[in-house]
Amino acid sequence: MVPSLAGATQDEVRRANLSLVLRLLHRDGPLSRSAIGTTSGLNRSTVGGLVTELVDLGLVVERAGVGRGVGRPSLVVEPVSSSAVVLALDVRVDRTVAALVGLGGEVFTRVERQHVDALGDPGRIVREVAEIGREVLSSAPTGAVWVGTGVGVPGIVRAEDGLVRQAPNLGWTDIPFAQLLGGALGSGARGVQVRNDADLGALAEHLRGAAQTVDSLIFLAGDVGIGGGVIIDGQALVGAGGYGGEVGHVRVNPTGRPCRCGAVGCWETEVGAEALVASARSHGLDVVTAIDVIELATSGDGVALQVVQDVATWLGVGLVNLLHVLNPQAVVLGGHLAAVYGAARGRVTEQLALALPAAREQVEVAPAALGSDAVLVGAAEIAFEPLLNDPVGLLNDLSADVLVSAAR
Amino acid sequence: MVPSLAGATQDEVRRANLSLVLRLLHRDGPLSRSAIGTTSGLNRSTVGGLVTELVDLGLVVERAGVGRGVGRPSLVVEPVSSSAVVLALDVRVDRTVAALVGLGGEVFTRVERQHVDALGDPGRIVREVAEIGREVLSSAPTGAVWVGTGVGVPGIVRAEDGLVRQAPNLGWTDIPFAQLLGGALGSGARGVQVRNDADLGALAEHLRGAAQTVDSLIFLAGDVGIGGGVIIDGQALVGAGGYGGEVGHVRVNPTGRPCRCGAVGCWETEVGAEALVASARSHGLDVVTAIDVIELATSGDGVALQVVQDVATWLGVGLVNLLHVLNPQAVVLGGHLAAVYGAARGRVTEQLALALPAAREQVEVAPAALGSDAVLVGAAEIAFEPLLNDPVGLLNDLSADVLVSAAR
Repeated sequence: MVPSLAGATQDEVRRANLSLVLRLLHRDGPLSRSAIGTTSGLNRSTVGGLVTELVDLGLVVERAGVGRGVGRPSLVVEPVSSSAVVLALDVRVDRTVAALVGLGGEVFTRVERQHVDALGDPGRIVREVAEIGREVLSSAPTGAVWVGTGVGVPGIVRAEDGLVRQAPNLGWTDIPFAQLLGGALGSGARGVQVRNDADLGALAEHLRGAAQTVDSLIFLAGDVGIGGGVIIDGQALVGAGGYGGEVGHVRVNPTGRPCRCGAVGCWETEVGAEALVASARSHGLDVVTAIDVIELATSGDGVALQVVQDVATWLGVGLVNLLHVLNPQAVVLGGHLAAVYGAARGRVTEQLALALPAAREQVEVAPAALGSDAVLVGAAEIAFEPLLNDPVGLLNDLSADVLVSAAR
Repeated sequence: MVPSLAGATQDEVRRANLSLVLRLLHRDGPLSRSAIGTTSGLNRSTVGGLVTELVDLGLVVERAGVGRGVGRPSLVVEPVSSSAVVLALDVRVDRTVAALVGLGGEVFTRVERQHVDALGDPGRIVREVAEIGREVLSSAPTGAVWVGTGVGVPGIVRAEDGLVRQAPNLGWTDIPFAQLLGGALGSGARGVQVRNDADLGALAEHLRGAAQTVDSLIFLAGDVGIGGGVIIDGQALVGAGGYGGEVGHVRVNPTGRPCRCGAVGCWETEVGAEALVASARSHGLDVVTAIDVIELATSGDGVALQVVQDVATWLGVGLVNLLHVLNPQAVVLGGHLAAVYGAARGRVTEQLALALPAAREQVEVAPAALGSDAVLVGAAEIAFEPLLNDPVGLLNDLSADVLVSAAR
């Protein structure tokens, strides 16, 4: 209940305002000084001072904008994408995707590589991830400062120190991933932010994807498991230990199938990719992936369509539960769930109609706009957070050992 | 993503700090200046200036504290409970409970009265509620300023304007309750804050009850329906339209009973007070209320115990779902759910053991500390919010028509 202005001094206010302006430019791209003023609520002279400070830090430049008539063209403030870069990593069950992303969101490099040994020793995966990370970092523009590393993993993560508590599909329990990767990258644990992949997907879809216009959303990462990322009133719902949004284990069917987690009838046993494939096979279909089943269904196979419709019904049942608890404005469907929705939307809608009107009338259900890069984009965003929160403090703190040059 | 310091001026900072200090005193009671400094992070001279301002406003006094040795006793800053009062109302299905509450939480008057006609015309209930409200206000101490009115109702409420969207057990749909009550009280709609009863219960248990030491909690109001109030990271989870926490309609049993809402197997059809009574009667027990059943169970009736244990199992099933989505630090059980937990805790624990360890290991389940007054206490807190947010602004704004004297 204590507001965040608690004991704010003038210095703190200035720091917060500097953060605000840099965050705006990072998210929205080039803006005129007056647009910055309008969006931030800061007055002209304050904006001027803050822009000058950001220019001095090398994070933004001012250049002539495209004029809309005669006279002097107005100045536009633009983030310098090569001034500060982050390493973004999406560690999946079978592969790692890595990207070097600049301030403002520009992707300089993107590399995708299969794990040599998917369920092996976590130390081995750390070494593989660090190797691809260093490779990506070596492509950084000259002079770029490496300001952080963000990682998404398919598991339950303690955000404060990047401990992966449980990642059943990787076979990990209590792996200090941030610390291990920080060591392998030579950046120390400080700069490595690890999060649940679906939480990063939610952040990405909120900042740069299908849910930019809303403040409250649920992102569902459809894969073997069903991960959920929740943002309420613009803030990630992380929960007491950073474990909120484990929606795959909401029990929707007490008489359903046993789940890997030990319980029965968890949502992911009804709508996960494996459930879809297993159900299709039990009906005699020759399929390997969830997408195979959905393609069959959309190309007119009646049996496949029935299988997909059943999954769509359970997708709707689980969504209704989430709408009642969270009352979001948007549900963004990732992975195969987007395809299930596309192929059997009517069944989802049928279930949503059973929700209390107040809970369903304001919600939009939409497929993810960033496709399979949502987690990667979210990883970059979380890595930029320390810079966006306190640009002066972070740049002062960074010593030579975390400059990109040192990683080469 | 925009921080709350956006464009803060020095004036705004001072206002926020004044709010912070008043909020502390309201919540924690008398504090020394140095304790205020420690808790707020404000320095000595800032605290001194703010305390002086609050003394000038008549909201606090400084008096000699109890000395801990020789020498001059230290000064203690104390909220003046008779300086500002609120009208708190808990509108239940069968009755209204009203209280006059002073700054700091002192209850001056508490009145409880049955509705003449429970499911009648909402206009009639508004008149009854206004009448009991005026009666309570007339007991206000001389000079007290009536700063607001808070109301809890068993329904889905749009917080911004106090429209009751759906209150099935009152038979209401889209009733502009804040506006109607404001009119009947002669205070205008401005001063009337209406909220879902469970949301207020959560607020009250968080500020003054069983969940003071945590930041994330779920409060379950056990009655005919099961209302839920959720607080995450110290903020109420209100959702897109203020309808979050409708946990009674999370579907736990697709093959269960039909619910009043039109769906099947909603949580409240398994653990609501009516479900408990109906189940007991179907087993031949002669009971009227949920508490009757639980008393039979605890006094050794094996049939009643079985009925309560079944409800406890479903209580556990639903809790597991909420833990996975919200990952709270505490679950506070109100109404008969507290008694069910007391009588058959083992069954709840058995279900909780099926949750993912990360979701369950940090959570405490506890009965409500404020008992049946939780909603009333929450209503008072929400009514004090405008004063606590901006004491100077609110007291300046208040004109003669909202002074207590005018309500007499």
